[in-house]
Amino acid sequence: MIESVSEIQVRYSETDMMGIVYHGSYLPWLEIGRTQLLAEVGMPYREIEESGLFLPVLEVNVAYKRPAKYDDRIVITTQLREKPIVKIRMDYELHRDGLLLATGYSVHAFMNREGQAMRVPDFFQEAVERLL
Amino acid sequence: MIESVSEIQVRYSETDMMGIVYHGSYLPWLEIGRTQLLAEVGMPYREIEESGLFLPVLEVNVAYKRPAKYDDRIVITTQLREKPIVKIRMDYELHRDGLLLATGYSVHAFMNREGQAMRVPDFFQEAVERLL
Amino acid sequence: MIESVSEIQVRYSETDMMGIVYHGSYLPWLEIGRTQLLAEVGMPYREIEESGLFLPVLEVNVAYKRPAKYDDRIVITTQLREKPIVKIRMDYELHRDGLLLATGYSVHAFMNREGQAMRVPDFFQEAVERLL
Amino acid sequence: MIESVSEIQVRYSETDMMGIVYHGSYLPWLEIGRTQLLAEVGMPYREIEESGLFLPVLEVNVAYKRPAKYDDRIVITTQLREKPIVKIRMDYELHRDGLLLATGYSVHAFMNREGQAMRVPDFFQEAVERLL
Repeated sequence: MIESVSEIQVRYSETDMMGIVYHGSYLPWLEIGRTQLLAEVGMPYREIEESGLFLPVLEVNVAYKRPAKYDDRIVITTQLREKPIVKIRMDYELHRDGLLLATGYSVHAFMNREGQAMRVPDFFQEAVERLL
Repeated sequence: MIESVSEIQVRYSETDMMGIVYHGSYLPWLEIGRTQLLAEVGMPYREIEESGLFLPVLEVNVAYKRPAKYDDRIVITTQLREKPIVKIRMDYELHRDGLLLATGYSVHAFMNREGQAMRVPDFFQEAVERLL
Repeated sequence: MIESVSEIQVRYSETDMMGIVYHGSYLPWLEIGRTQLLAEVGMPYREIEESGLFLPVLEVNVAYKRPAKYDDRIVITTQLREKPIVKIRMDYELHRDGLLLATGYSVHAFMNREGQAMRVPDFFQEAVERLL
Repeated sequence: MIESVSEIQVRYSETDMMGIVYHGSYLPWLEIGRTQLLAEVGMPYREIEESGLFLPVLEVNVAYKRPAKYDDRIVITTQLREKPIVKIRMDYELHRDGLLLATGYSVHAFMNREGQAMRVPDFFQEAVERLL
């Protein structure tokens, strides 16, 4: 398993009129978690796309346990548990002060610049296998 | 089953640098679908909140089949399939020109102004049962 | 002067914890106003970009007079007052039930696919001059 | 003059199909700049709102000089140049690697919980005057 920890601070723009964080605001946070994990594995997502590889989202899921609020510091724990073959899955946990706020996962395809699905490139496979 | 159909047109602000709609932009669309369904059942969400009842999101899931693009007209089909008891679940399908782009679901609690979970209020139960 | 009228309905995702519409949510609305104007002039923005012309924002300004709220129907009036030469400026007014909520303007460059500034293309100039 | 410096890293969700940062994504950044300045002055915005004082945006302006891109580190410099009386104005500059990307300003009212405009509260006035 590869695990990475990121932290964000809730922005005012991420709240809604219920007085808490808008549920859709969590998706960019999960994205911060997985790009952080990829950077730590040696593959910054900016460079991945520049090399012509894209990881579009096939599925995303978030389960909300407790509300996040404006100005909260949220710790995002991202896990890559399995070797990616044709897809890659990441799992997430969000905590504030040790309290679990939400869990989630995302599944991604590997796609080339023309929008065609492709197998996991060797450089990606190797970078991940070194650490898994 | 209660079914409702809404339509949106993709905004430029909803795209990302992959040239397609950002995956997080779908969540406000699902919300448009379910508020449209609630309005058709006789319970505009604005009035629901004004009466002191809130439907916070407990879980959301989206499966992306084909990319949506800028300026696309997207048809959102929302279904309420089961009588809500302590939670309410909505199911969604998004189409463009008859082509399935994405499916999803959301699960919501019933919450009062103090943030406490509550049973489904009678007026809500009755409005739904008339149509289910 | 060319004038165009659009209408949007405020989404829950566009509100913030102040209980009103987040000030940044107005920018996509101005964009809906100007793309509607361009479509009415015979130049849908999707086609403009497909032809290799882009209109990046050089400046944007919004003055907020009264708060917009969830579920409000907002009428966006967009005006093109002057013949564009190297830049194009649009002016906006937002109303709810005849009440002025906000005014704004945006200024745009004409840019080619390589990101270089260019003069207004002939087809654009002519489409606008026919109506101004 | 009171000056504060913040830094953000551009999120994927903040880009659009032009391949650069969506112009509306800058508004939450300006907000990060001014809340950072208020925190350094001893008035975290969360506490300001909890005390019943709100600073709704009356006007916002952004001038875009050079595009910001995904993953860029952006330095936000926020300045409070004048003593607030009935309004407060903040000025902003955004840089990447010393290069000016954008300038902007925002003007805010002082509002109580009932949505009524009010004079600048003494605690706010004093905190600012100590540093101006």
